[in-house]
Amino acid sequence: MTDKPMKYGRLIEYDEAVPEARAVFDDIKQKRGVPDVNNAWKAMARHPAVMKRFWERAQQVMAPGALDAKTKELIYLAVSVANGCEYCSASHTNLAKGKGVTEEELAEMVEIIGLALQGNTYATFYGQEVDAALKD
Amino acid sequence: MTDKPMKYGRLIEYDEAVPEARAVFDDIKQKRGVPDVNNAWKAMARHPAVMKRFWERAQQVMAPGALDAKTKELIYLAVSVANGCEYCSASHTNLAKGKGVTEEELAEMVEIIGLALQGNTYATFYGQEVDAALKD
Amino acid sequence: MTDKPMKYGRLIEYDEAVPEARAVFDDIKQKRGVPDVNNAWKAMARHPAVMKRFWERAQQVMAPGALDAKTKELIYLAVSVANGCEYCSASHTNLAKGKGVTEEELAEMVEIIGLALQGNTYATFYGQEVDAALKD
Amino acid sequence: MTDKPMKYGRLIEYDEAVPEARAVFDDIKQKRGVPDVNNAWKAMARHPAVMKRFWERAQQVMAPGALDAKTKELIYLAVSVANGCEYCSASHTNLAKGKGVTEEELAEMVEIIGLALQGNTYATFYGQEVDAALKD
Amino acid sequence: MTDKPMKYGRLIEYDEAVPEARAVFDDIKQKRGVPDVNNAWKAMARHPAVMKRFWERAQQVMAPGALDAKTKELIYLAVSVANGCEYCSASHTNLAKGKGVTEEELAEMVEIIGLALQGNTYATFYGQEVDAALKD
Amino acid sequence: MTDKPMKYGRLIEYDEAVPEARAVFDDIKQKRGVPDVNNAWKAMARHPAVMKRFWERAQQVMAPGALDAKTKELIYLAVSVANGCEYCSASHTNLAKGKGVTEEELAEMVEIIGLALQGNTYATFYGQEVDAALKD
Repeated sequence: MTDKPMKYGRLIEYDEAVPEARAVFDDIKQKRGVPDVNNAWKAMARHPAVMKRFWERAQQVMAPGALDAKTKELIYLAVSVANGCEYCSASHTNLAKGKGVTEEELAEMVEIIGLALQGNTYATFYGQEVDAALKD
Repeated sequence: MTDKPMKYGRLIEYDEAVPEARAVFDDIKQKRGVPDVNNAWKAMARHPAVMKRFWERAQQVMAPGALDAKTKELIYLAVSVANGCEYCSASHTNLAKGKGVTEEELAEMVEIIGLALQGNTYATFYGQEVDAALKD
Repeated sequence: MTDKPMKYGRLIEYDEAVPEARAVFDDIKQKRGVPDVNNAWKAMARHPAVMKRFWERAQQVMAPGALDAKTKELIYLAVSVANGCEYCSASHTNLAKGKGVTEEELAEMVEIIGLALQGNTYATFYGQEVDAALKD
Repeated sequence: MTDKPMKYGRLIEYDEAVPEARAVFDDIKQKRGVPDVNNAWKAMARHPAVMKRFWERAQQVMAPGALDAKTKELIYLAVSVANGCEYCSASHTNLAKGKGVTEEELAEMVEIIGLALQGNTYATFYGQEVDAALKD
Repeated sequence: MTDKPMKYGRLIEYDEAVPEARAVFDDIKQKRGVPDVNNAWKAMARHPAVMKRFWERAQQVMAPGALDAKTKELIYLAVSVANGCEYCSASHTNLAKGKGVTEEELAEMVEIIGLALQGNTYATFYGQEVDAALKD
Repeated sequence: MTDKPMKYGRLIEYDEAVPEARAVFDDIKQKRGVPDVNNAWKAMARHPAVMKRFWERAQQVMAPGALDAKTKELIYLAVSVANGCEYCSASHTNLAKGKGVTEEELAEMVEIIGLALQGNTYATFYGQEVDAALKD
């Protein structure tokens, strides 16, 4: 356990983590079949309750349902890239590949993001009302 | 053709549009099998060259490739919603349904967007470095 | 003066405004040569000190300097459109035209915004380091 | 040519690039008169078709037209800064200087961006309708 | 219950809602002491599972803890305004007032949001590294 | 004083700064009781007039008023995190702690930010109108 002051960017390794955070580390490692968790989790271990709730919510939302796991990962990644999150782009590109997303699919995804942001720009600039046919 | 001053939000109907814009209207109506184009296109008709280039680029980027048309629409829609574009949400929800996206899939998509933005927030706040294993 | 409860979206007309807000209304009308102020100012009149400081800062920042007034308006407008602000797009398109910005220039501006957001997307997705040559 | 796995952040140098990407490298170096391309292009070389289309579109959109090259660069840079893209800020500040933008102009630009985002904030918070006079 | 096709922007009133959504309506009305729920909930009733999870998560996150309810509402509102969400600005201004936030506090809050976005702009533009003293 | 060319990311130390920038350095060090200023200020010293105006505006807006200094810092920090600014997250987490914000409060704050962005997403996707009761 640690009593070192927590600062921005500091990573908490398994040995320093409190039991509630360690349990999340163990669960991630087991379910993802990885020897260690990513830095994102080591940083969130600063606030174990936040970390635990996010891990639980992520599992619930990302589980295959009407959409399959690969499509879900593409949506998560695309939103993160559009939102400018570099860390999320790196880590979720990795997760997407683990679920079978190919380089060709990533190349198409990144062009769709750019197109969507261009289209959003035109919608803001031209400022048209939502069509009645789309509303009811 | 029109010589009325162009203002924010003004829609240009087919009869007032210049020939370059009319050609795009005709092409959209034929390819999408719709009797009229959405307001977004009627507003963009103010700048026919912008409109024409966007229509051409949209067709190229959204055509089925490594990703199918439905997955592409989901990515476009998710990015637009995350980016706060209400018009784009309305029009691309409609396009997505036309490509077979169900209400159940939309419900899952909107939760993934919220989760991704939450995850992006944690990445910014905790400020961890990108893991070496993700970098090379 | 008003003692009506202030709510979201409510506009405060000149006759209901407190003296500090009235003085800003008068100054805007005189300096812009318009018979009435836009809704943005009528809404901000709910908080006269906020309104007064923003009007003063806007005049300072937007005054011709190294950049001329027209280029400054284009920058303000482009940022507002990229940021998804529809009201700002409408009002600053109007201000830009008053400073001589043409439809052709607006058409080029909106394409640059879309291009920049596309380029930003690639920078986030590919995640490259800033080149040493750009750093020092 | 490379068969090394492509990862986040990895730069592809000229010698490892596929012919389609090499052609873009050559074209950029020649048209910009630089001995090497920036990291952004070396990263995009992972997806040569994306890279090629972006380079072609960038040339088309950024070419002098109704707006001159310097004003266009200022708009691109301002949008990228407002959108939080650090890489783009660094590389396009460099491009802007190459087109004659001065430190005084950059100082004014960055204040306009801050002012616009402040003004956008007020528009969202106060939530006023778009003025009828701005609409038709 | 409804079998009408669900479209963008459509509100589902209590009488048309499915039982899972009705239970959320009832819970909100009781806990907030209001005769009817806001449009946001009537729209979300289109996807009752999304609605139910968001209502549960909102109650958990917004409950008084280390931060009191009023401060929590100010943070939620400020983020929503900075993010450009007009609906959220309107509804959470109302909630904030219900928790005792005054007009003077709202006026100060909206200036802080504008200042933060200005400061964020400078951080992106000048691109400085995070200080070592802030990191460890 | 320096005549070295100014580039992206370059920090200007006290000894190289022009007198107008030095005066801001001195004022920050004295008012905050710190031996040196953060990198953000050393980078802004490239444009002393921008730096001076931001420092003055920051003091005015962040001074205790209807809201206390701690609540103001939480709002500034939350907006910066939601906006994806990593530098601002690091520096304002530090400032917040200096004003008494605890780890427990930061943990609650970061969850509220994630919740707000999730709620904003739903508002964009479902696209409901602002309730009449919230409007007047």
